[in-house]
Amino acid sequence: MKIAVIGAGSTYTPELIKGFIEISKDVSIDEVVLHDVEQSAEKLDIIHQFTKRLVKDLFKVQKTLDIVKAVEGADYVIFQFRVGLLKARENDEHIPLRYDLIGQETTGIGGFACALRTFPVVEKYVQTVDRHSKATVINFTNPSGHVTEFVLNYLGFERFIGLCNIPINLLRMISQISNCEIRDIFLKYYGLNHLTFLEKVFVKDQDVTEILMQKMKLHLANIPSQDFPEWLLDALKLYPNSYLRYYLSQKTMLEKLKREGTRAEKVRQIESQLVELYKTANDIPPELSQRGGSMYSTAAAHLIRDLSQSSGSVHIVNTKNNGAVKNLPSDYVMEIPCLVKANRVFPVTIGEADEFALGLIHIIKMYERLTIKAYLERSKKTAIKAMLLHPLGPNVEEAQQLLEDILMANKGFIDLQ
Amino acid sequence: MKIAVIGAGSTYTPELIKGFIEISKDVSIDEVVLHDVEQSAEKLDIIHQFTKRLVKDLFKVQKTLDIVKAVEGADYVIFQFRVGLLKARENDEHIPLRYDLIGQETTGIGGFACALRTFPVVEKYVQTVDRHSKATVINFTNPSGHVTEFVLNYLGFERFIGLCNIPINLLRMISQISNCEIRDIFLKYYGLNHLTFLEKVFVKDQDVTEILMQKMKLHLANIPSQDFPEWLLDALKLYPNSYLRYYLSQKTMLEKLKREGTRAEKVRQIESQLVELYKTANDIPPELSQRGGSMYSTAAAHLIRDLSQSSGSVHIVNTKNNGAVKNLPSDYVMEIPCLVKANRVFPVTIGEADEFALGLIHIIKMYERLTIKAYLERSKKTAIKAMLLHPLGPNVEEAQQLLEDILMANKGFIDLQ
Amino acid sequence: MKIAVIGAGSTYTPELIKGFIEISKDVSIDEVVLHDVEQSAEKLDIIHQFTKRLVKDLFKVQKTLDIVKAVEGADYVIFQFRVGLLKARENDEHIPLRYDLIGQETTGIGGFACALRTFPVVEKYVQTVDRHSKATVINFTNPSGHVTEFVLNYLGFERFIGLCNIPINLLRMISQISNCEIRDIFLKYYGLNHLTFLEKVFVKDQDVTEILMQKMKLHLANIPSQDFPEWLLDALKLYPNSYLRYYLSQKTMLEKLKREGTRAEKVRQIESQLVELYKTANDIPPELSQRGGSMYSTAAAHLIRDLSQSSGSVHIVNTKNNGAVKNLPSDYVMEIPCLVKANRVFPVTIGEADEFALGLIHIIKMYERLTIKAYLERSKKTAIKAMLLHPLGPNVEEAQQLLEDILMANKGFIDLQ
Amino acid sequence: MKIAVIGAGSTYTPELIKGFIEISKDVSIDEVVLHDVEQSAEKLDIIHQFTKRLVKDLFKVQKTLDIVKAVEGADYVIFQFRVGLLKARENDEHIPLRYDLIGQETTGIGGFACALRTFPVVEKYVQTVDRHSKATVINFTNPSGHVTEFVLNYLGFERFIGLCNIPINLLRMISQISNCEIRDIFLKYYGLNHLTFLEKVFVKDQDVTEILMQKMKLHLANIPSQDFPEWLLDALKLYPNSYLRYYLSQKTMLEKLKREGTRAEKVRQIESQLVELYKTANDIPPELSQRGGSMYSTAAAHLIRDLSQSSGSVHIVNTKNNGAVKNLPSDYVMEIPCLVKANRVFPVTIGEADEFALGLIHIIKMYERLTIKAYLERSKKTAIKAMLLHPLGPNVEEAQQLLEDILMANKGFIDLQ
Repeated sequence: MKIAVIGAGSTYTPELIKGFIEISKDVSIDEVVLHDVEQSAEKLDIIHQFTKRLVKDLFKVQKTLDIVKAVEGADYVIFQFRVGLLKARENDEHIPLRYDLIGQETTGIGGFACALRTFPVVEKYVQTVDRHSKATVINFTNPSGHVTEFVLNYLGFERFIGLCNIPINLLRMISQISNCEIRDIFLKYYGLNHLTFLEKVFVKDQDVTEILMQKMKLHLANIPSQDFPEWLLDALKLYPNSYLRYYLSQKTMLEKLKREGTRAEKVRQIESQLVELYKTANDIPPELSQRGGSMYSTAAAHLIRDLSQSSGSVHIVNTKNNGAVKNLPSDYVMEIPCLVKANRVFPVTIGEADEFALGLIHIIKMYERLTIKAYLERSKKTAIKAMLLHPLGPNVEEAQQLLEDILMANKGFIDLQ
Repeated sequence: MKIAVIGAGSTYTPELIKGFIEISKDVSIDEVVLHDVEQSAEKLDIIHQFTKRLVKDLFKVQKTLDIVKAVEGADYVIFQFRVGLLKARENDEHIPLRYDLIGQETTGIGGFACALRTFPVVEKYVQTVDRHSKATVINFTNPSGHVTEFVLNYLGFERFIGLCNIPINLLRMISQISNCEIRDIFLKYYGLNHLTFLEKVFVKDQDVTEILMQKMKLHLANIPSQDFPEWLLDALKLYPNSYLRYYLSQKTMLEKLKREGTRAEKVRQIESQLVELYKTANDIPPELSQRGGSMYSTAAAHLIRDLSQSSGSVHIVNTKNNGAVKNLPSDYVMEIPCLVKANRVFPVTIGEADEFALGLIHIIKMYERLTIKAYLERSKKTAIKAMLLHPLGPNVEEAQQLLEDILMANKGFIDLQ
Repeated sequence: MKIAVIGAGSTYTPELIKGFIEISKDVSIDEVVLHDVEQSAEKLDIIHQFTKRLVKDLFKVQKTLDIVKAVEGADYVIFQFRVGLLKARENDEHIPLRYDLIGQETTGIGGFACALRTFPVVEKYVQTVDRHSKATVINFTNPSGHVTEFVLNYLGFERFIGLCNIPINLLRMISQISNCEIRDIFLKYYGLNHLTFLEKVFVKDQDVTEILMQKMKLHLANIPSQDFPEWLLDALKLYPNSYLRYYLSQKTMLEKLKREGTRAEKVRQIESQLVELYKTANDIPPELSQRGGSMYSTAAAHLIRDLSQSSGSVHIVNTKNNGAVKNLPSDYVMEIPCLVKANRVFPVTIGEADEFALGLIHIIKMYERLTIKAYLERSKKTAIKAMLLHPLGPNVEEAQQLLEDILMANKGFIDLQ
Repeated sequence: MKIAVIGAGSTYTPELIKGFIEISKDVSIDEVVLHDVEQSAEKLDIIHQFTKRLVKDLFKVQKTLDIVKAVEGADYVIFQFRVGLLKARENDEHIPLRYDLIGQETTGIGGFACALRTFPVVEKYVQTVDRHSKATVINFTNPSGHVTEFVLNYLGFERFIGLCNIPINLLRMISQISNCEIRDIFLKYYGLNHLTFLEKVFVKDQDVTEILMQKMKLHLANIPSQDFPEWLLDALKLYPNSYLRYYLSQKTMLEKLKREGTRAEKVRQIESQLVELYKTANDIPPELSQRGGSMYSTAAAHLIRDLSQSSGSVHIVNTKNNGAVKNLPSDYVMEIPCLVKANRVFPVTIGEADEFALGLIHIIKMYERLTIKAYLERSKKTAIKAMLLHPLGPNVEEAQQLLEDILMANKGFIDLQ
């Protein structure tokens, strides 16, 4: 088995390798190839050296700047690159704030700019994977669900699975609260990536939703720490993804973002420090936990393990709905529980979605599709149409100027007429 | 043929009667009954006297305060009442402004309060109509589409048609621009009441959309006068209902509403003046045109004429989608072109809706259903859930207080626990 | 307005011309072009001379053997040709009988052979129409519904309407029984051509189904005369198309067909006699009534009249379901009531189809699609798959030989590998 | 864990018990209760004694004639009763033959009579299970899919799974041919019970359909032995359930049935012999293999094992489609691959069904629903409607007499007006 990691210059990579080491008890890994762009060559080298120390002789770890060599003959390809690196993320977070709009990497107008910058690279890399391998792609590149919608519905490449670390963290939290194994839990959980809703929790066939909802607090990792009020769970009868705060507490979150500065800056500091540590480390330094993305490595490694086996297990991933949520269209890419078995992903049927969830899922999915069309048509007009539809987007009066600001900051990455 | 007008104390009534006079060439009207509540008895009397002068001997015009007598044996019942009268509308418009939210009678949180106040009365009156007649109800009571959703999907009363004056004004505008008859025009027009989209215009089978879009300006009656910029039509490739401004230019509209005061106040002044004029008038005074609701009377009278005939004509009304817009659920009550024939309304199939329209239609329909559930469950929690979903609704931080303000202002009308 | 009639050498043509004369009061017809193939040149000439005597100076009537000249610049094109002429029909009717299978021109294996012979010619003619005109095609060529499925769903040509004389005869029968105008009637009527079901009859909004069902007898023209027993209507709660007999009384019908000989033979005799009469006639001879196809001319002429106008009227035609029958797919071509207005055809929504009807509609539609695929793939295998699915088709043991017999008899027309 | 077996006087029961013994390594079984009706008390006793010898002390085996005691507090209830016993089956097989119709226990008119006789008993037993336990019912009672349609869609009891031994035999055959584990296989397999289609076979993610189709012969157990010709698989591009022969080779099968006599008779002989052997046996006698129903015991035991666990495995069972087959309605009960996990059954999404399969599935599902309605309405008329729709059903001319014959033979069991 060959695994290629695209965007391997990330400080996440060592933990990912640790995940591969863990699953190598169950599946036989031959080779891991680390790939990144020229600009990140130095970081890639440091990380390559570090991972070799971690892996010892369990499997080969190579590095390359050549995307074809990286994916050639691979069985699994992991996308974890960030187009434009942290500089671009900084822009995504800063520009919307000037218009009193949420600046966040995946949600709102920040995510919009990120998506437009990411699509062309994803398109190129997916074509390369398709040409040079039969690999299944596991995607972490943000905005992860939006990218998966693009690949499955517009590029027509089918072996592509969008993954996020939120479901696995949620499952871990529930298994701790309920004192059971993760495999004993089944969730009625659905939505778009970072716009998901947990409606029911079953532990060994018992509906424990009521009990759990009372116990759960909103402390998912990697996101701002202010909690939803408890009465909100009672009103919604849904446990929402913490990214919902950007919609439901827009004003509060906006002030917070303005006050605290962008996340990109902090991440840059943490990353520099981590890279420094990686030069000499022989194991994952505890400082990595500040980086966010908790359990990311476990999610990816376990998914690869179960994809490569026949036994059949359930993972929450981004894929086409295909009737799993009955009152949503079959072609919507959604984050839903799926049976994973022999490199295939089958959504399992979970009934109907709640009205509140439906309203937000539909409007954001339509925003996603308009944004994809804006890229495919290279059209400023359609880009504005997409922004105007987004509940966190601009008003008519400011939309054109905002788009120009985004285009200016992303010269060379986004090309619209 | 007997026609009952519920809420006949409205200053619109005389023009409605003029509409009946016009269609009495084609259909034989025996009797029109004007009904209103005790509180409006004096206005009802003035209007009754005036309409008798208008009608002469063409048909009988009666008045009553008894709803059963009004609808008994009726063939058509027109709902045009306003629960809580202008005082309540004033609250609907004022309260949201305190929270920097759009205060408007049908859209946003104003419409939310109006809906909750209106549902119980609609429920009672619909039951009365059902028990004492085989009449078809034509509804103008606001929020008109929301009320129709409630009646068709939750009360299960089928002979109920939601009507609005916007489509007929749009058709008139197009017929003037295109120099053709209204019946030569077919519109690909769809959406929810006050959230509609015109996508295609056909005149005698020719697609004239491009030409028309260039000519059309947004000057529909009864709404604030500021226009959308021309580039917006090019970006959307849709001609939106002017109420869309509340969504797309939320900040501008909010300032405007704050600056100009509520519409309720102005309407009250116009109404007083009109009632004074009605005491002696022998024909509709020109001052009525300031009242808004242009062509309302024509829309209602022509619909009744065509419902009572077999020939088959097309009207844009609010009814269940039933597959007419292919990518929206069959049970959504929508404002769409329908074949009207022998008291039956058949939506005609018009293909798929645009993504931008879909996004807004879905989220507002889900808001509508949550609001209806809040009424049916008498639940504050569900009411908050509805408000939080609305793109013009409050944030989590202010939702509870806002709901309490609305309940306080609507004591005796809205009863939630 | 130019109308082209393809297959105009048919003895139906003079009556069709009478229909055009009738509607020429309402619409201005400039020119009618009669087209047929070389083989029918003589008949075409006789009919051309006769129709000129009928038309006088009302409009021009031309004849041509050149399909491009015929359709060039036409507004309406009528398809009424029979590929292979009566000789082929005779085979369609005879061959299945050898296998104890129903031999009928549109239903069962006869219709299967007819369809495979007709598709290539329809494909060629539709392309010619598309290239040389903006005409709407009105199709009578059998199997009419199957041909319309092929054109709308597989050729993607949209201006194509399948027509049958059964609905207009049904409406006339009901208007006589109910003593009302046809336009006062609305039918819940649906299905595939020659596989339709009448579920409800409304006259001026009154549901008169019960009364009518008691009165109606199955005496539709152009089909074998033996009636269904009365109890069957009570059991089905549907008034079925008389072609249903081939399904429901298969054994009886088979014996009848064997006993009476093929219809093709009789038609040939009637046609010879008619052509002889046409040589000198100045008006439609009464002998035409034996030919079948009653009211065909009226159906076509009225449809053209109403397509060319804006007023909007209801016709039962074959077009895509588009949600009109809620529990059948949108893309099924069906025979259903449609609003006809300015060259557009909009199915009107009529609710859900009955289980009995659904079962037969689905299986026959799937048979239709497999037959179309057999043509498109030029595949004997798929042709056998189609035949095996048909409830009137062969068993596995005889399917291959039956197909070979059909191919042998249709050499030069059907080409499968 | 308590398991109740209803209809435990069957000679299948000892093998079923062997299955429980096998899974008792993985799950802890406390008690098995064997239930049958008074009439079978003697057989029940013999079988009870025999199973006690088999089980030794692994778990308790009780017997009872009291249905409440049997199901009270049960975790799993197995339905394997035959209403009217073999005498009734004999009628089901004989009567249709008099009309030259297929007489078979589950397919055609035999299955129709069986269904009408079985529904009232299923209704009563399901209510009892619902009242006295939280058990999941596993149904083998024939016609198994039809019974499951009745329970899930018309009784609204959800914990009901229809099971058949054909899928497990198919999987075993494929695992032998492919030399792999059953869990390495994934089938695109769908349809109604005894009307299923295998379209694709994946072994460890490789599409091996082509290779397998060439190797497979139609030798499924429990059904007449004549094979489909090999060219048929190529034409259909589907591997059909062997019960398809009754549809596709109707004449041949009819002759065979007439020639060979009913299966009921043979079964009766085998059963007598087996019961005799059971009196003294200490293990399953080899003669059981003649009884048919091969692997029935394994299918049931493994399903119970996997229902009671959290790990998640795939079984092919009868349940609501729920979007799994995209082009079939969500509420059709179908035989499809499902994820089984903690007493829940989730159909996995497998894409679109083939046209040939669709046609037959739809018509038989509509026949099923009409038959269920006939029972619920106690209506002869609807019963005839159902029979007329069935592709193996009678013609109009004989339908009434056939129904009377069935009612006469099933007096006391079927009550229609």
